[in-house]
Amino acid sequence: MAGKNGRVYEQLFSPTVQHTLDLVGIFVFAISGALLAVRKNFDVFGIAVLAEVTALGGGLFRDLVIGAVPPAAFTDLGYFLTPLLATLLVFFLHPHVERLQTGVNIFDAAGLGLFCVAGTTKAYDYGLGLTASACLGLTTAVGGGVLRDVLANEVPSLLRWDRDLYAVPAIVGSAMVALCIRYEALTPFTSGLAVVTAFVLRLLALRFHWRAPRAWNRRSTVVEGD
Amino acid sequence: MAGKNGRVYEQLFSPTVQHTLDLVGIFVFAISGALLAVRKNFDVFGIAVLAEVTALGGGLFRDLVIGAVPPAAFTDLGYFLTPLLATLLVFFLHPHVERLQTGVNIFDAAGLGLFCVAGTTKAYDYGLGLTASACLGLTTAVGGGVLRDVLANEVPSLLRWDRDLYAVPAIVGSAMVALCIRYEALTPFTSGLAVVTAFVLRLLALRFHWRAPRAWNRRSTVVEGD
Amino acid sequence: MAGKNGRVYEQLFSPTVQHTLDLVGIFVFAISGALLAVRKNFDVFGIAVLAEVTALGGGLFRDLVIGAVPPAAFTDLGYFLTPLLATLLVFFLHPHVERLQTGVNIFDAAGLGLFCVAGTTKAYDYGLGLTASACLGLTTAVGGGVLRDVLANEVPSLLRWDRDLYAVPAIVGSAMVALCIRYEALTPFTSGLAVVTAFVLRLLALRFHWRAPRAWNRRSTVVEGD
Repeated sequence: MAGKNGRVYEQLFSPTVQHTLDLVGIFVFAISGALLAVRKNFDVFGIAVLAEVTALGGGLFRDLVIGAVPPAAFTDLGYFLTPLLATLLVFFLHPHVERLQTGVNIFDAAGLGLFCVAGTTKAYDYGLGLTASACLGLTTAVGGGVLRDVLANEVPSLLRWDRDLYAVPAIVGSAMVALCIRYEALTPFTSGLAVVTAFVLRLLALRFHWRAPRAWNRRSTVVEGD
Repeated sequence: MAGKNGRVYEQLFSPTVQHTLDLVGIFVFAISGALLAVRKNFDVFGIAVLAEVTALGGGLFRDLVIGAVPPAAFTDLGYFLTPLLATLLVFFLHPHVERLQTGVNIFDAAGLGLFCVAGTTKAYDYGLGLTASACLGLTTAVGGGVLRDVLANEVPSLLRWDRDLYAVPAIVGSAMVALCIRYEALTPFTSGLAVVTAFVLRLLALRFHWRAPRAWNRRSTVVEGD
Repeated sequence: MAGKNGRVYEQLFSPTVQHTLDLVGIFVFAISGALLAVRKNFDVFGIAVLAEVTALGGGLFRDLVIGAVPPAAFTDLGYFLTPLLATLLVFFLHPHVERLQTGVNIFDAAGLGLFCVAGTTKAYDYGLGLTASACLGLTTAVGGGVLRDVLANEVPSLLRWDRDLYAVPAIVGSAMVALCIRYEALTPFTSGLAVVTAFVLRLLALRFHWRAPRAWNRRSTVVEGD
């Protein structure tokens, strides 16, 4: 089903390695969804739904856009079951999981790095241009979290100025992959480097509370009311 | 257009019976959407939009996922017009419709049963696995209601612990269909049984206020703030 | 890729003219998204995301429904870059842009007219019926704004009774195109007329604060609580 651009994605890693990395990313994103659901006081089904949506939403959107139907989320049983495992874990152990918030953040950063690289390469495989592929890589990485926040009826933390940088690491990772493809330098090493770059950037943003600027003269607008 | 799994869906009932059941389900879901729109003080177009989204959203999502484009919502005029009929009814008679809340609940439970069975069989027809089909059946049944609540800027009642069980009846109905397909026992009778089971379970949940548990040690988390 | 209905869309205007009109519509919708993001205190990435979603969301949904994948939003670089231009403009100049609110409203009305016509014709090109095409034309025109409001965690202004008519001008424009197709009278002139009609209706609605009615006996419901 892959498009005219060939199968960059599948050649990168062995299928088993790739699949394991995907499941790791899905698992950590599911944990973040399940934890938000507990904080929002949802019941066990609400926790499962939010875990599934957070973990699979970004990839589902990407697959619909590139025409990869049915999406991987619905063809790979492991993709579906992993968030349920995260649900069980959070359901029974969530005070402990919350105490491990630093650990969750680190894994979530790893998920961000893995998904932006996997999303970019898969989009390119299905024939999209380099800019569009990088853009879809970003969407794959952050889309699940946006859906999570929308379902929880909160302003997506991706958009809020008072949260540490989240999109930028994914943009950098996606752009690195797109540039590597452009210059025919995409190898397991370079794509691994993109994963690590996004991962480290996100950790640094968390550590040093890097934030993005808001619009100029914002203060004047506040005064103007809202 | 049906996939490798054949046409379980279409053989179940005569096309006329199936179509009538679909329209009934669409109608009752549309009523629930329109009523929420009235409560949220939307104008007549807002009522129509929420009726359409509630009635057709779940099936639309399913059709996009299985690649059944254009989705039935856009090819069957009756699917489009039925929510408008519900809009008119609610627009002119809503105090009466609200007084009939029990009736609406019963019909909505019927819609839940019909949609989870129809969604599961249609997904299987398009080549999805049994677990994925059951999962899409559930999504078909509850998806419209989730979209309704998101558009109305409310926490989806599906996710809230203080609402009577809604997902579980649909999960049971979808799982029954998947099991019947697995053991080649899907007949009009068994699938009708799945509809009735989901329907009755939902009514019992409403009657006895069955709720799903929240995460363990929830109280401790509340104290931790948020 | 166009469907059985032929290529009404592409014959209407020269490709260059059509493309320019599309970009104008995208630009003005992006401005409205970016301004809301500034008001919601989002950072620069939040502004860009909301600009992209507002500008491209409606067309993206239409393309997914009609099976035009990958959607134009991901194949045309200009579609992607135009909202970024709008983001820059709003980011650096937003007090000035806000002072030009009347100008933004006029452009947004133009975008509404352009998108409802372009959406209807493209949907028809892909084989949808006339009613469904008109319905998708409406969705193309208003969908981005609904997504914008959902992401910003607000009740979509499309649905609110206290906002001036927005859907009706798009419905009229879409219906005019569908009728023209039906009677084989779709020419650059008649479709231009549909654009202008929707545009002028929207301006009149803004000028005279036309609103749509809410459900009858609304007052009684308010008393009933909620």
